[in-house]
Amino acid sequence: MAPESASRQRIVKSTAVLLVDCPDAKGIVAAISTFLYSHGANILHADQHQDNEAGLFFMRVEFDLADFALDAENFAREFQPIAHRFRMRWRFQDTGKLARVAIFVSRYQHCLVDLLHRHQIGELRCDIATIISNHQDAQALAEFYKVPFHHVSVEGGRKQEAEGAQIDWLERSAVDLVVLARYMQILSPAFVARYPLRIINVHHSFLPAFSGAKPYHAAFERGVKLIGATSHYVTDELDAGPIIEQDVARISHRDQVEQLIEKGRDLEKAVLSRAVRWHLEHRILFYGTKTVVFD
Amino acid sequence: MAPESASRQRIVKSTAVLLVDCPDAKGIVAAISTFLYSHGANILHADQHQDNEAGLFFMRVEFDLADFALDAENFAREFQPIAHRFRMRWRFQDTGKLARVAIFVSRYQHCLVDLLHRHQIGELRCDIATIISNHQDAQALAEFYKVPFHHVSVEGGRKQEAEGAQIDWLERSAVDLVVLARYMQILSPAFVARYPLRIINVHHSFLPAFSGAKPYHAAFERGVKLIGATSHYVTDELDAGPIIEQDVARISHRDQVEQLIEKGRDLEKAVLSRAVRWHLEHRILFYGTKTVVFD
Amino acid sequence: MAPESASRQRIVKSTAVLLVDCPDAKGIVAAISTFLYSHGANILHADQHQDNEAGLFFMRVEFDLADFALDAENFAREFQPIAHRFRMRWRFQDTGKLARVAIFVSRYQHCLVDLLHRHQIGELRCDIATIISNHQDAQALAEFYKVPFHHVSVEGGRKQEAEGAQIDWLERSAVDLVVLARYMQILSPAFVARYPLRIINVHHSFLPAFSGAKPYHAAFERGVKLIGATSHYVTDELDAGPIIEQDVARISHRDQVEQLIEKGRDLEKAVLSRAVRWHLEHRILFYGTKTVVFD
Amino acid sequence: MAPESASRQRIVKSTAVLLVDCPDAKGIVAAISTFLYSHGANILHADQHQDNEAGLFFMRVEFDLADFALDAENFAREFQPIAHRFRMRWRFQDTGKLARVAIFVSRYQHCLVDLLHRHQIGELRCDIATIISNHQDAQALAEFYKVPFHHVSVEGGRKQEAEGAQIDWLERSAVDLVVLARYMQILSPAFVARYPLRIINVHHSFLPAFSGAKPYHAAFERGVKLIGATSHYVTDELDAGPIIEQDVARISHRDQVEQLIEKGRDLEKAVLSRAVRWHLEHRILFYGTKTVVFD
Repeated sequence: MAPESASRQRIVKSTAVLLVDCPDAKGIVAAISTFLYSHGANILHADQHQDNEAGLFFMRVEFDLADFALDAENFAREFQPIAHRFRMRWRFQDTGKLARVAIFVSRYQHCLVDLLHRHQIGELRCDIATIISNHQDAQALAEFYKVPFHHVSVEGGRKQEAEGAQIDWLERSAVDLVVLARYMQILSPAFVARYPLRIINVHHSFLPAFSGAKPYHAAFERGVKLIGATSHYVTDELDAGPIIEQDVARISHRDQVEQLIEKGRDLEKAVLSRAVRWHLEHRILFYGTKTVVFD
Repeated sequence: MAPESASRQRIVKSTAVLLVDCPDAKGIVAAISTFLYSHGANILHADQHQDNEAGLFFMRVEFDLADFALDAENFAREFQPIAHRFRMRWRFQDTGKLARVAIFVSRYQHCLVDLLHRHQIGELRCDIATIISNHQDAQALAEFYKVPFHHVSVEGGRKQEAEGAQIDWLERSAVDLVVLARYMQILSPAFVARYPLRIINVHHSFLPAFSGAKPYHAAFERGVKLIGATSHYVTDELDAGPIIEQDVARISHRDQVEQLIEKGRDLEKAVLSRAVRWHLEHRILFYGTKTVVFD
Repeated sequence: MAPESASRQRIVKSTAVLLVDCPDAKGIVAAISTFLYSHGANILHADQHQDNEAGLFFMRVEFDLADFALDAENFAREFQPIAHRFRMRWRFQDTGKLARVAIFVSRYQHCLVDLLHRHQIGELRCDIATIISNHQDAQALAEFYKVPFHHVSVEGGRKQEAEGAQIDWLERSAVDLVVLARYMQILSPAFVARYPLRIINVHHSFLPAFSGAKPYHAAFERGVKLIGATSHYVTDELDAGPIIEQDVARISHRDQVEQLIEKGRDLEKAVLSRAVRWHLEHRILFYGTKTVVFD
Repeated sequence: MAPESASRQRIVKSTAVLLVDCPDAKGIVAAISTFLYSHGANILHADQHQDNEAGLFFMRVEFDLADFALDAENFAREFQPIAHRFRMRWRFQDTGKLARVAIFVSRYQHCLVDLLHRHQIGELRCDIATIISNHQDAQALAEFYKVPFHHVSVEGGRKQEAEGAQIDWLERSAVDLVVLARYMQILSPAFVARYPLRIINVHHSFLPAFSGAKPYHAAFERGVKLIGATSHYVTDELDAGPIIEQDVARISHRDQVEQLIEKGRDLEKAVLSRAVRWHLEHRILFYGTKTVVFD
């Protein structure tokens, strides 16, 4: 019951994020930070990671664009010599340009409800371009939040056709990121190839344990003492993509499968929403089949 | 993306819960279990607790009413000798009779959104009789979930009048439980006295640390490494009622007050919804200023 | 720096534990509690569990022996009709009779150090009969805690001979429970058969993920965001016995395999010591390949 | 039982840590990283933090000394212009120079046992110069680990004399860091002033809740659902110094004070050992009454 003043106006600065990864070498940070400083960047956050065994370097810098002298195009041209010298992969992201997100959902709506409310109160900075479902259940919710709802039936044997319709709709909606919010269909390799490292799924187990179907039933059978959930990027191999986030909850012999499913819902919401947020905030880098998540 | 069959039809049994607390003594369990058995009860869950130092006994029994020979009235009469012998406080709850719940909310709606969706999917077995707010923000959500919304302005100096209107509305709505879902007004002792141990609040700190106003700011100032939230029954003394549930989340120097507020929202939802659920499932007993929560 | 009075004298009551499991049926609790009451038992703790889907009943009762009329032999005779009627498996344990425990260890001593100190301060009520190792490293520690140390070399090809020597030593030491405290050898089925559900192991992963060798390396390769440890009873199938306890810790991209090993040590100590304690306090029951742990 | 190869030889590189904090400004990272690069530093880890609201900058850089051109003395001279320009507080630490640590303990030895074993296996890179106690209990353990033990009685009225003897011993032992491992005496301001931000204590509660004496009893009385422990630097104000680490564990109505104390021991070990480690690894910076801990 403690009173609290209404949330202050949030003044969103105009910022950019630079993401870099390359073989580790002396002088990388000096080169990048001197470059940014020389063009007037006011650094707001910076984080870096060196994997000394693998010889890799990762960096994320967020800086104020207010006094920054370069736009995206000029940045690319000016930064090119440094990128070349250190053999960098890099991305320059203007955070003011919001990603367009499609949420796929089947019948369970807890993740969808969670994502839509987080978006509404400003936790997820993106445009939710569309909700796509193989069921009608989520239509009312989509309308409440004024998000275009698109129903694509995925009946037996019509999966290819359905995916065609989905991709068509995604392209017309100019979608940058696909979020599978307990979408109960396996996407084909062709679909996945369209959105490489841009499809985030939540799997309702602590991967790699209990991949595949009915993980809560499998966890119950095995008699584990904790259940988990995992958010990850989707790749061709089922439940084997780079893990973004995981969490667990304690269970006991008192919990039947139904209770595992209930407790698991809260884990699913947590790990999926964090993954989406970190993706949108350009906090995730890759090495091999793994992720670096800058916090 | 793992497929899972649609949730099976939940066949809700007709059950009752018996809650007992009394001074500890030999023979209590024998007396209760023999009584229930002799009247045909099929026990589904039973849990008990003995505080040997304080000399107290607590029990919760849930049993199937299918073959049970007594209704509530007859139960009271037949159970009376046992209750008298052991000086029991006891309650017999037919779980088929759903509690009527009022949710109070101010501007922050995350707990409300969470409670309404949990109710919709069957996690909270109750009737949500009304939503009462000192703001208009939640009206659309109330309408979406088809819950009567009642706006009661609480302007400076008009608190007594506002509480009168609230109580009037609660009584007309036949409310059994009041849930303060981030309701930012302090209830008067007179209000609290109307609903003894039937008002559940969520406080956004790990009580007893940071009671009172602006706990996230206080936590930030103190430099704690974990933040918390607490759900508790409301009593006359601010933030001092019996604690039902608490949870914490790790923070770091990277988190400003704004991040504490964001991370805290998830804790608030978790501890409030669990408290409401446990109350509705008749899992909570009291001793002194503390709770026993049977899981 | 806060002062605290020295720990009060712990007066250990003379108690017994009754463990029961059987097909669920009406009247079990009434029968047991009436039986105990009629023979003067003062119940200190009681816990029960019903698996309604599987139709199973589990119970643990701890009671004061001060006024109890039956010794173990008489108990068996008097309890027989009830056990027969409900087709019970049951055990009557006098808690005053301490189990004799053997700890197996290889080179890593963190679990051993932890167990020995917990035993010293009274957390683990047992006699530590012996420490057996395939290395000499733990000898000094064993001597410090005055526990007989037995070195059994397990060189290539001599495993059967080594196990023979170990079993011989275990029998001469009258051991009731074998604890594998990071013992880096796989026991043969013949060994395991000697101590059914009386060998507790700690595996350094969140089973069933990363069973087998080098789990921290496997976890690192997969890029999980949490690592775990699991204590379980040893059966013929490697890392597949009934799980007793599990715990996890958060890791990040900053953690190399070496850090996983370090963080994992704390998990291993935690889950192994809890498992040993619960076993010694007769809190664990079995169904199928799973455990019920009464807390 | 999974076999694992013996721990590989750890080749400890010769490294240094540079810690910096100053008012935030453009160009700090460019200046530091260019400076280090120009003198041949191979950066192994770097982390920085900007508090944009407070306008503060914090940095920790660890680098290989193999090709580094400056020793500590030359570093100070060469770095001076940068430090002056940005008004930095800074420290240059050769990690090869091990800190000398004194552990204070009373009767409870769980933290001491934990610290000594962690030191033995290389988790805590320091010299444990001495163990000081107001009791004799820890003497045998000190001897086992070959650490000089010093008994200083602190009887009523002789505290000042005792502290004099302690300080004398600390100075003769050339101690850099004092660790209060459940030392049950309050140090005087005069003592604390001798080791500013170099005394680490563990308090057995989740501060600021339950500061002062008997926190587990207070937590039990209040009926909290989680207990905690806190490691912090000692200042003049009791239990109010900068917090380094905190952790919590779930309790229930089944736990009496004795169980709180038992569960709390594991928390105390965890938060104290992490604090000591982070201090020794030069990971901790201060602002005001708070800490930045670089992980």
